[in-house]
Amino acid sequence: MSKYGAYVKFTAKSGERETLADILLEAAEAIRSVKECEVYIINLSAQEPDAIWVTEVWSSAEAHKASLDLPDTKAAIARAMPLIEGVESIPVTPLGGKGL
Amino acid sequence: MSKYGAYVKFTAKSGERETLADILLEAAEAIRSVKECEVYIINLSAQEPDAIWVTEVWSSAEAHKASLDLPDTKAAIARAMPLIEGVESIPVTPLGGKGL
Repeated sequence: MSKYGAYVKFTAKSGERETLADILLEAAEAIRSVKECEVYIINLSAQEPDAIWVTEVWSSAEAHKASLDLPDTKAAIARAMPLIEGVESIPVTPLGGKGL
Repeated sequence: MSKYGAYVKFTAKSGERETLADILLEAAEAIRSVKECEVYIINLSAQEPDAIWVTEVWSSAEAHKASLDLPDTKAAIARAMPLIEGVESIPVTPLGGKGL
């Protein structure tokens, strides 16, 4: 089965990027115990002052979809939502390399 | 010092994506011994049939820049160049998370 990956761009409401990044970093800690999640890295955009990129790799698209129903995920989404202006995603199929 | 990251999109010439992906996967193997490189994952775009995305995390922007002068990197670039139509990069600053 193919792995599932995505670059997910969160655009924060003005002045809220740091708070949103902290919530996403906490979510990344909670997800360490989820073995189907292989990568969940929080990045600041180097070009857009309100943007955060999350690099995700999951064991399968199904595992990613199932993660959205985890209580920790739902709680993080509820906290993050008021700080978010928009979300875009670039879906990818990870083949291999260093870090997988 | 901040880490340096990038999502690098390679658009292959028509019909050359698989060959280009193989070259990049070989480059990823060669880079396993470079400790300043923390992540180098090769992905196929799920939306664009000629596109490959490479997820990179380096210990610093300087380490990334220095890597371009490594003999293995130069050899991979020389092999890949004839197969590449275009390159775009989204630079990011990795903060943390699972996989770092």
